[in-house]
Amino acid sequence: MTLTGNLLIGQTPVTGSREAIRAIDPASGQALEPAYRGGSGEHVAQACELAWAAFDAYRETALEQRAQFLESIATQIEALGDALIDRAVAETGLPKARIQGERGRTCTQLRTFARVVRTGEWLDVRVDNAMPERQPLPRADLRQRQVALGPVAVFGASNFPLAFSVAGGDTASALAAGCPVVVKAHGAHPGTSELVGQAVARAVQQCGLPAGVFSLLYGSGREVGIALVSDPRIKAVGFTGSRSGGIALCQAAQARPEPIPVYAEMSSINPVFLFDAALRARAEALAQGFVASLTQGAGQFCTNPGLVIARQGPALQRFITAASEQVAQTAAQTMLTPGICAAYQAGVAALATNANAQVAATGQAAQGPNQCQAKLFVTTAEAFLVDPALQAEVFGAASLVVACASNEQVRQVAEHLEGQLTATLHLDAADIDSARSLLPTLERKAGRLLVNGWPTGVEVCDAMVHGGPFPATSDARSTSVGTAAIQRFLRPVCYQDFPDALLPRALQQDNPLQIRRLLDGKREN
Amino acid sequence: MTLTGNLLIGQTPVTGSREAIRAIDPASGQALEPAYRGGSGEHVAQACELAWAAFDAYRETALEQRAQFLESIATQIEALGDALIDRAVAETGLPKARIQGERGRTCTQLRTFARVVRTGEWLDVRVDNAMPERQPLPRADLRQRQVALGPVAVFGASNFPLAFSVAGGDTASALAAGCPVVVKAHGAHPGTSELVGQAVARAVQQCGLPAGVFSLLYGSGREVGIALVSDPRIKAVGFTGSRSGGIALCQAAQARPEPIPVYAEMSSINPVFLFDAALRARAEALAQGFVASLTQGAGQFCTNPGLVIARQGPALQRFITAASEQVAQTAAQTMLTPGICAAYQAGVAALATNANAQVAATGQAAQGPNQCQAKLFVTTAEAFLVDPALQAEVFGAASLVVACASNEQVRQVAEHLEGQLTATLHLDAADIDSARSLLPTLERKAGRLLVNGWPTGVEVCDAMVHGGPFPATSDARSTSVGTAAIQRFLRPVCYQDFPDALLPRALQQDNPLQIRRLLDGKREN
Repeated sequence: MTLTGNLLIGQTPVTGSREAIRAIDPASGQALEPAYRGGSGEHVAQACELAWAAFDAYRETALEQRAQFLESIATQIEALGDALIDRAVAETGLPKARIQGERGRTCTQLRTFARVVRTGEWLDVRVDNAMPERQPLPRADLRQRQVALGPVAVFGASNFPLAFSVAGGDTASALAAGCPVVVKAHGAHPGTSELVGQAVARAVQQCGLPAGVFSLLYGSGREVGIALVSDPRIKAVGFTGSRSGGIALCQAAQARPEPIPVYAEMSSINPVFLFDAALRARAEALAQGFVASLTQGAGQFCTNPGLVIARQGPALQRFITAASEQVAQTAAQTMLTPGICAAYQAGVAALATNANAQVAATGQAAQGPNQCQAKLFVTTAEAFLVDPALQAEVFGAASLVVACASNEQVRQVAEHLEGQLTATLHLDAADIDSARSLLPTLERKAGRLLVNGWPTGVEVCDAMVHGGPFPATSDARSTSVGTAAIQRFLRPVCYQDFPDALLPRALQQDNPLQIRRLLDGKREN
Repeated sequence: MTLTGNLLIGQTPVTGSREAIRAIDPASGQALEPAYRGGSGEHVAQACELAWAAFDAYRETALEQRAQFLESIATQIEALGDALIDRAVAETGLPKARIQGERGRTCTQLRTFARVVRTGEWLDVRVDNAMPERQPLPRADLRQRQVALGPVAVFGASNFPLAFSVAGGDTASALAAGCPVVVKAHGAHPGTSELVGQAVARAVQQCGLPAGVFSLLYGSGREVGIALVSDPRIKAVGFTGSRSGGIALCQAAQARPEPIPVYAEMSSINPVFLFDAALRARAEALAQGFVASLTQGAGQFCTNPGLVIARQGPALQRFITAASEQVAQTAAQTMLTPGICAAYQAGVAALATNANAQVAATGQAAQGPNQCQAKLFVTTAEAFLVDPALQAEVFGAASLVVACASNEQVRQVAEHLEGQLTATLHLDAADIDSARSLLPTLERKAGRLLVNGWPTGVEVCDAMVHGGPFPATSDARSTSVGTAAIQRFLRPVCYQDFPDALLPRALQQDNPLQIRRLLDGKREN
């Protein structure tokens, strides 16, 4: 469990040849050893070649072997013990309890995908038996299964050093689908990434899988990332990060001779709608819940509630007053990186000097480096509808309350929103009709709709959708959290009139994998 | 059932304002009345606005109502009677029996999607009940369903005036998913398109649906198509046609402020592998089957076998000799349009003058306008591996036999192929091991693999895949034929802690739609 500063190309540690990255402890501003020298285009090509060489064998591993591999990764991550926790805390400034919780979530996610792999439902097996007597033409025997797309490039996220990083949701779902993975680590936590990368590599070895199933690269700047997305052996991309970064990857993927899908989770301000009766009944309680969600983890969540929409009046005023008091009492918090902190400062400064918005409250002053002050702004629907700057994501604990003159203006604001990961409704029984009339709009705008909760906190389960229309993600047809995430890395193949001996086991006539099939138009029990 | 030459914007016939199209009877070269004046950007905007206005209501129609609508379209198409058949024959030069068969296929396809809609399985309902007692954190109640993407632009194909056109597979699957459809008719068969468009419009009216559920536009040049794909209210595109046309639509879709998915089925030469034992046992019978598939419908199928790959030797020579005799006896056939015929002539002329290929056989000379002569070429694996021109699709009854020196060269040729709709294997028991070793490559290259059959003929069923890696299609994760085609036009939405009264019926706790759900991780029977 020694940090080496090396890239991991399959099972082989390799020293990079480009400019070095060092993690910075944001709480102290100090650089952390070791240095991680960046990979070159040649290193990217080596990792992709190895992934390609592993692909055909890995995608046909038995379901049980693949499930055990995912479980083995979880076990190896847990075996890293406090070394992982301590390094992640040092690299992110996040509290120890949060990192411990995130480790648990990451391992649960891997084990959840192991369960998914074992069921085989993701193979979506469809069998249409031959009808040799059919008139006017006989029907052939036709069988369909899903196969893995190919090697997947995964980009680690800054804000979840474990759960959306080296062995996070993208990696877990791609490996579950049968795709080798080449990870580009996020530069903010290279040591955490190396530890987890070593754990994955140990699991690869322990399970007797081809070395190229997993590689880990570092790199400052865009060289490694663009080379990775452009490599002809990479067949899909998973990314969580900024809108500009995600769009750059989408463009690189589309510019290839063979374009490939990019699953980029990019930008969301997660509107919260406060309906009249709920607001009247509990403006202060709503304010408390709102500020807790807003300021959790310094607001560094994709699902942070960055927008509150309600009808103006005394109840909304009570909410703003109570929320402002809470924000003003909120201690400054250390952000993940100096860059993220600087971007937050710039974002709130732009709003503070925007005549279309007013500052309602500011959190307590910073006590150390890279700390942010929470911030609450207010505006009107008229201003929001004409000023696109009010809809830009400020990553961190800043939010904007939009006061509307009427239900019609609430609807206009909702229709004016860009695509979102989430939309939240706070309502009482008397608000049900108003909420119902807004639902068609919100269903078109967001991937997840919540009632009387807060959008932070994303459960790993079958029904979760962590996705949404552009620019929340680059592909609204998918989710990056939950078991349906596996579907992103699959494509259907049909086998016509194959002799049983030549069919993949999933499609053989006596169903040796015991998969629930769609058989001659009927779902098997 | 009078042809008017009008666009159909919802229920309203509108005369276009741009250059007129007239269909040409390819068998006579004569232009057919009436003229179809092209739509303008304004007409596109009107159709899209109407589709948008219809979307929220249409996507929430009851499953039974939507299924009846699809069935009603089929009934209305059948009610067109011989007027439809006669016009389609005149506009395409295809035999009457072929058009009658295609009408049957089109109506069966609509009724098949009606069956799919009724089952509700495509909603992929997932319910994770709340766990209020869970430690360390309770779990919310989470429910997922699929919702329609939004209005879909469908581009009619030249080669299937019914089954891949106004009410073809793209339209049927988009309507089944809950998406309004705006069709741009193919300029080769505007009268057929108008008749079918009128039938769809009557079904819309008969079922009491909003007018914007269906519109039909014409236009020469690219104005209407690019305007349609660029319209912000269009949320997905279905296209069958040329590689250049499909790529242009993909680029327009990516250049939008909000990029959208494009399902373009573009280009495939459908390799056929003849294994040694099969070739030795029945070279002449294989040649007969091959030429029948190659020349059917003047070879104007996406799945036409444009490439034959086998080991050189006496058996392959027997195949080439027999196939050449068959091709030489093949009568010239009328192609769909003067443009397609000219492109075919240019394609075979380029191969005939390419030093890397030799002409093996030429079909009988043309007896009328727009007729093509079938053509068979031969080449070596060495030449094929270095000359990209040998892999270009020639749309029509032309094919190329690639003679390989070894099994390794067969594998190299397979690896060198671009993405394909189909790959076919002809084999005997003694060939099974050779075939098995080639399968991993072919699974990566094609959407459908066939044994001892011919790729022409695409069944509409659950297991069909009519799709494949680029450039066969722009999105290998999908199929444009078969019931899985509905998935192209859906996206998941999650509902968290919704009161039952606010949930869509598909997600309500007592399951009023009786859908087979994934309930707390278990599939219901």
